[in-house]
Amino acid sequence: MASNEFFFGTLNTIDKRVAYSRQRQRGVRHDNRLLPQAPRPGDPPTVVVSTELPHAVERVVCTLQEPQQQTVVLQPAGDHWDLLNWRYFQTWQARLPAYAAGTTVRYTIAAYPAGGGDPLPADEGQTFSYTVGQPGPPQWAHEAIIYQIFPDRFHPGAGHSWREAQSMSDIHGGTLQGIVENLDYVADLGFNCIWLNPFFPDETHHGYHATDYFDVEPRLGDMSVVRRLVEEAHARGIRVLLDFVANHWSSEHPTFRQARADRNSDYYHWYRWREWPDDYETFFGVRELPQINVDHPAAREHLLRSADFWLSDVGFDGYRLDYAHGPSHDFWRAFHDTVKSARPEAWIFGEVVETPPVQLSYDGRLDGTLDFLLMQALRDTFAFRSNGVAQFDAFLNAHERFFPPHFSRPSFLDNHDINRFLWLVGGDRQKLKLAALCQFTLIGPPIVYYGAEVGVTQERDIVQGERHVLEEARQPMRWGGAQDDVLHLFYRDLIHLRRAHPALWRGDRRTVYLDDEAGLYAYTRSDEHETVLVALNLSDHLHRFEAAGHSFELPPWGGDVQIFAADVRAGAQGRR
Amino acid sequence: MASNEFFFGTLNTIDKRVAYSRQRQRGVRHDNRLLPQAPRPGDPPTVVVSTELPHAVERVVCTLQEPQQQTVVLQPAGDHWDLLNWRYFQTWQARLPAYAAGTTVRYTIAAYPAGGGDPLPADEGQTFSYTVGQPGPPQWAHEAIIYQIFPDRFHPGAGHSWREAQSMSDIHGGTLQGIVENLDYVADLGFNCIWLNPFFPDETHHGYHATDYFDVEPRLGDMSVVRRLVEEAHARGIRVLLDFVANHWSSEHPTFRQARADRNSDYYHWYRWREWPDDYETFFGVRELPQINVDHPAAREHLLRSADFWLSDVGFDGYRLDYAHGPSHDFWRAFHDTVKSARPEAWIFGEVVETPPVQLSYDGRLDGTLDFLLMQALRDTFAFRSNGVAQFDAFLNAHERFFPPHFSRPSFLDNHDINRFLWLVGGDRQKLKLAALCQFTLIGPPIVYYGAEVGVTQERDIVQGERHVLEEARQPMRWGGAQDDVLHLFYRDLIHLRRAHPALWRGDRRTVYLDDEAGLYAYTRSDEHETVLVALNLSDHLHRFEAAGHSFELPPWGGDVQIFAADVRAGAQGRR
Repeated sequence: MASNEFFFGTLNTIDKRVAYSRQRQRGVRHDNRLLPQAPRPGDPPTVVVSTELPHAVERVVCTLQEPQQQTVVLQPAGDHWDLLNWRYFQTWQARLPAYAAGTTVRYTIAAYPAGGGDPLPADEGQTFSYTVGQPGPPQWAHEAIIYQIFPDRFHPGAGHSWREAQSMSDIHGGTLQGIVENLDYVADLGFNCIWLNPFFPDETHHGYHATDYFDVEPRLGDMSVVRRLVEEAHARGIRVLLDFVANHWSSEHPTFRQARADRNSDYYHWYRWREWPDDYETFFGVRELPQINVDHPAAREHLLRSADFWLSDVGFDGYRLDYAHGPSHDFWRAFHDTVKSARPEAWIFGEVVETPPVQLSYDGRLDGTLDFLLMQALRDTFAFRSNGVAQFDAFLNAHERFFPPHFSRPSFLDNHDINRFLWLVGGDRQKLKLAALCQFTLIGPPIVYYGAEVGVTQERDIVQGERHVLEEARQPMRWGGAQDDVLHLFYRDLIHLRRAHPALWRGDRRTVYLDDEAGLYAYTRSDEHETVLVALNLSDHLHRFEAAGHSFELPPWGGDVQIFAADVRAGAQGRR
Repeated sequence: MASNEFFFGTLNTIDKRVAYSRQRQRGVRHDNRLLPQAPRPGDPPTVVVSTELPHAVERVVCTLQEPQQQTVVLQPAGDHWDLLNWRYFQTWQARLPAYAAGTTVRYTIAAYPAGGGDPLPADEGQTFSYTVGQPGPPQWAHEAIIYQIFPDRFHPGAGHSWREAQSMSDIHGGTLQGIVENLDYVADLGFNCIWLNPFFPDETHHGYHATDYFDVEPRLGDMSVVRRLVEEAHARGIRVLLDFVANHWSSEHPTFRQARADRNSDYYHWYRWREWPDDYETFFGVRELPQINVDHPAAREHLLRSADFWLSDVGFDGYRLDYAHGPSHDFWRAFHDTVKSARPEAWIFGEVVETPPVQLSYDGRLDGTLDFLLMQALRDTFAFRSNGVAQFDAFLNAHERFFPPHFSRPSFLDNHDINRFLWLVGGDRQKLKLAALCQFTLIGPPIVYYGAEVGVTQERDIVQGERHVLEEARQPMRWGGAQDDVLHLFYRDLIHLRRAHPALWRGDRRTVYLDDEAGLYAYTRSDEHETVLVALNLSDHLHRFEAAGHSFELPPWGGDVQIFAADVRAGAQGRR
């Protein structure tokens, strides 16, 4: 039985949401609330703070550190009732000065208790920041169609076979050379972008326990093959994104080993010690993954140098940023500035498994965030049918209004940490195809997880009682006769459909048909040149219906796309 | 052991607050949200609606029924993330037309599903309304000092003694004549207002199971004694408020008996039947208290006639409205208009045991609401010390900013449904006096529950395991030698202090001293004529301190008041 995992691990029960909500309201909170979130040149942004304290607050002050020392006093902006904490909280606002494009503004915020006493810093003393007039993602990002490759599981290369792996956690023998050799395969499908899971020196099969961010795991290849991979990809019109983890790395990283061995080491401050040497902040309690103190200048500098290196020196085109919710927004601001300065056309998006407002708070720091909410909605709708199409439509409408169009929301049906979609639907290719058709006709740049296009699935569920065996989602790629040719052809067509019709990534979306009971759903994507009409039958029955003046006869779990030059936005609509 | 009851019964656990919060967000919700809540003449108010539905919403429409038929289409005002329900909701707004003073505006709101389908009414189809330019409470309300009298427990009168009561639920024999005979006692203390618990025909000792809203319980008196009570009170400068329950009455009420006996009775629609004749809406599940359908024209008319009768015909000065959160806002709008038309100087305030925003939603319909939150804060601070003075100060500041000054918030330390304050503090008169000093020097018109001023207390706690024996708070009044003379004198002085110094009810409040650790707290109330400085020592130790240039030496649980003409608002402040 396949599980519909809830991906928002810190928010997956009502109790956790209540605790989160209560916690986030207490104390002095800024939470990077700027209006607008990514200020434009000459446009003074409004900074928003809330206070919920066991004493009155006399004033709240924003202290600018850059571009020059200056204080701005916030004004009271209202009192509100916090139902869950059962007390009042107060909001405060002030306009910060307007600055020219490229100016970095850094500030802290503190609330002063009425009648004196020490100021209370917002968000545990964080430094907040933004750089004025950040350009947003490059144009090519909007057109990107991404293939996610997990190096150990894609192709052994150089005539090698897969290793005899003892388990799914064992090394399977994929290499970077194996990827280079199969770039034609990727290009032929039509992908114009690759997201590469990490390849840094690392004993694990997945590469998320790295010990050096400037080198390559020898088992996977060396620097020259990395350079060749990027060059060969570029030669095929394929950009390459690297998976980068700023939040943590291996406890075997030499800086951590030194910091742990010697309290006076320069690296001591690179980590967050609760009690040296055995108690330190980690990635969700995994002792092998110490959290990096990205706000310490030298540690930050090290990470930024690495980020710069792979772009400037090797030619990568951007980053997929693992657990981006860990490091501070100020770190990402600096990361963003480094990246865009190294390569103005670079694209960076984060894994921020959080609420929409928190995701949007990264605007101006990251180009966007992976669309976990859409993934959940697609699975609920197309795999489990726990959502009707009306509910899916309501979600899509709100979701598309909530995020500004410039904010990248790469879409996906699955990835290396969750059940593959094909596994979820018991191998039913029709359901996968229909979900992919929907994914590929929405605004977010679609990601295909290697092998989804040829029927790679699992042998057992990721959820094993209390344990999650993520490796199940990392079965080796199928090649040659093991590939599902029909699915392969479908994905190839789908990718070329999106590439041939820019309305699919830049057009307005409009629902033109919806029958919740029957499970029928149709929408158009329209730009100034054309309209693409997408019709979906999410039921076990054949259905005939008309949408926007076009007739459809769709088999169970079938979909159709019609393209025409006429603008149908004023056309017929129906809902039964 | 005295219990600190949590009074917000529907919100007294985190689970209830979570359920409430989730429930209130779902569907189509207006919740009487108008900006401003009580529109002024010529001022077009903004109507606010939120939708959280399992399908998209095409438009939201406000349909005006009065003063003329008209529809106003709301505009989308944003998408927001509902963390607890884990989905988006949308807000909508529109400006309604501006109307002249006295115009009653009535409207419904509905959301239309995208693509067609039946409109979904807001708030289960409620009709919302307001009357433009409602004047707010009369001037005398701001100056009111209220004595709450529970008729069966105040005085037998006419030379009678108390009955030999078998229990606290039994009749004790107080009468309206007993009240008349003791108006001098009330006047001598300095009260200028009485709130009379109900005296309608009713077999219970408390009068909340009435069977006729136009008559008097014979045991308590008759119409002539009621008239005499009002006249005699007025002769002493005392206004009289009647306790009125619009939400429910006794199942022995003749209209209910007929409705239950005969489905074709005219009275059938006066009630809310789930399944006639045995299943009907009640006051919190009490079958003896059927809920009245106040939105049914004839039932409403009956209630309004009664409200008019006691004001116009008998001369009452207003109402304390029991469980005012039960009937609709539209009912209260009509009630308000009837009351103010019968007696422009009438004052009405409601028992709305709800969050501050819900309380404030009655602005323009009621003159105010009983200040349950302040009562809780006073008890937490002065009886239990579970709040420090800094937290109390933070609460007071926010609370005073949250409610506009015209909105009445009558204050109280206890009432007929909760433990008496003196019981809570184990009979410690110093603590009662200090809490009362604070109560009497804040903006809200203070209410004294009969007997608090002479040491009436309880024999056991109201909370008996799972059961609440409210009657414990209704011990008979003490007279003559049984009275605590020191307390009596203290209350008399306190009342006269407030009457002599209008700054106490109309002045700005400003904290001038706060020492959370020591439990010292001082504030000023200042109008253009004078400043009253209030200093409180909430500790078990004698303390000396200076506040606003004045020295205090306060015994444990002692307070002091200083009055001077100079304005100290620019004066010295301290916080240790």
